[in-house]
Amino acid sequence: MIVALSGGVGGARLAAGLARVLPPEQLLVVVNDGDDFDHWGLRVCPDLDTVMYTLAGRVDESQGWGLADERWTVLEAVAAAGGETWFRLGDRDLGTHVVRTEALRAGRTLSEVTVELARRFGVAHRVVPSTDERHRTIVHTDAGALEFQDYFVRRRCAPVLERVSFDSAAPGGGPARPSPAFAAAIAGDGVDAVVICPSNPVLSVQPLLALDGVRAWLASRRFPVVAVSPFIGGRAVKGPAAKIFGELGLEPSVGALAQWYDGLVDAWLVDDADRDALPVLRARGLHARACDTLLSDDERRREVARVLCDWIRELPPPHPHDPGRPR
Amino acid sequence: MIVALSGGVGGARLAAGLARVLPPEQLLVVVNDGDDFDHWGLRVCPDLDTVMYTLAGRVDESQGWGLADERWTVLEAVAAAGGETWFRLGDRDLGTHVVRTEALRAGRTLSEVTVELARRFGVAHRVVPSTDERHRTIVHTDAGALEFQDYFVRRRCAPVLERVSFDSAAPGGGPARPSPAFAAAIAGDGVDAVVICPSNPVLSVQPLLALDGVRAWLASRRFPVVAVSPFIGGRAVKGPAAKIFGELGLEPSVGALAQWYDGLVDAWLVDDADRDALPVLRARGLHARACDTLLSDDERRREVARVLCDWIRELPPPHPHDPGRPR
Repeated sequence: MIVALSGGVGGARLAAGLARVLPPEQLLVVVNDGDDFDHWGLRVCPDLDTVMYTLAGRVDESQGWGLADERWTVLEAVAAAGGETWFRLGDRDLGTHVVRTEALRAGRTLSEVTVELARRFGVAHRVVPSTDERHRTIVHTDAGALEFQDYFVRRRCAPVLERVSFDSAAPGGGPARPSPAFAAAIAGDGVDAVVICPSNPVLSVQPLLALDGVRAWLASRRFPVVAVSPFIGGRAVKGPAAKIFGELGLEPSVGALAQWYDGLVDAWLVDDADRDALPVLRARGLHARACDTLLSDDERRREVARVLCDWIRELPPPHPHDPGRPR
Repeated sequence: MIVALSGGVGGARLAAGLARVLPPEQLLVVVNDGDDFDHWGLRVCPDLDTVMYTLAGRVDESQGWGLADERWTVLEAVAAAGGETWFRLGDRDLGTHVVRTEALRAGRTLSEVTVELARRFGVAHRVVPSTDERHRTIVHTDAGALEFQDYFVRRRCAPVLERVSFDSAAPGGGPARPSPAFAAAIAGDGVDAVVICPSNPVLSVQPLLALDGVRAWLASRRFPVVAVSPFIGGRAVKGPAAKIFGELGLEPSVGALAQWYDGLVDAWLVDDADRDALPVLRARGLHARACDTLLSDDERRREVARVLCDWIRELPPPHPHDPGRPR
């Protein structure tokens, strides 16, 4: 089984490729919940929905998130009634949030309702939240500590990011615990590889790594961790990863990524545009390979996933590592 | 100033007529909140919205509630995602509930958000909730004690009604208190008449009368209370009032209405079809008058309101009454 750690758009696209080349029992997509929040009285899980919609073939491909053929009647009505419209929820998308919110209020877990929603959307592969507990990313910036969506959507990532932390509500006060499916993967021995999807390392992957026991699990791994670079030629394909890396004093390069994920990643799949980085990565003792990593359509996603899965079969199991610690 | 006590459709239609013939400062429409509830994570106030939409000229006239030119994309999406669709919330209507819910969560009162919503909908006259406190109608039936919308919408009023009670949350544990605007009318001396709109006496008006101090206010009144009959020729124009009266052992007649509101009403405006009841009412010491009370369109509403307002000017102030007590 391959465990894919995913954020939103980039992760969703790679996960969709993996779902094309792996049968359902051989893939577990674990999705970041750090950007979950409550809006308009509803629980919104942007990354989870992006992955679900993408795997269902229902995503709005032009923007990478939301549902295709979306309508905006509610948003217009909210605007007319004087409400907040900085976070745009579409009419079709609202169906998901309504059902999730009702189920959560009825006492079901986010994992349970996600299974049901994914089934309704016809997603055969397992898409699970990273945690069923509160685990909200707080973005510390030059404009203060901001809730994630306030930073990401309302302020369009304009404030300078200093670091992120997590507002967790695990019983006992520690970090939030992985969801049951994620925890089972962590506890079991059925994991053949972990794939870190080309998602924002700081905003999307770090929340996953901050969950209770995840770093320790990866540090003691007997399977390879393969990361797909979210950068192509020094730029993020989508989103603010390059800007944020700059604010942290890092270049938006594969080398900086390898430094960020030091000790957690065994193998890097980078874009052809970043072939220059292959010797750098190998000099750090990492496996490295290049291909066209642009996940622009179904065919490309399938192709990258195929390259990745073929490569994973060839990779040797790693030696046990010390716990890695991204800066 | 005339204070109109209103439920949903029938009350909204008379209130719209009154708003045509009275300037804003001479009308206060106090709307039942007993059927308010939370659905899809949102606070829904059906009667309040029906009155607001009707006064705004935005109501769906064919059904009497909801917004005209409504769309149902969210409802369809909720159905597809496996959610509850027994209460149909339209896309445009959802804008109202979203804005209200957000404002209530931000700590504003229902009265405050209603002022703002009414302003946004272009309603010049004052439409106010009966209370800002929790005051939910519980319908006791042969199928048990039911939340109002469970009884009214989900079960389509099929269970046999025995009585209603109220789940109130006033500080101190008593009945919920009137909203500030309603309380000001109660405390002041500016009320020239109270109009009980042709709303369901049990489900719509009784919740208003059950608020703290309302019965005592009416019992000691020095202004006339004028009721417009919700029955025409032994039938309710709309809704289950006749069925419920039957279940309470009453006929759906003006005579039974007068008995129900005994001591609270000074004057009855009934439909021409119920002229027979005029002597019965007068024999009880009540003023009584008949006209065509069908509020089918704007012209009819204006006409009934004009008849009502002209009549109110002629009515003598009542003698102080004993507190009336509907059975």
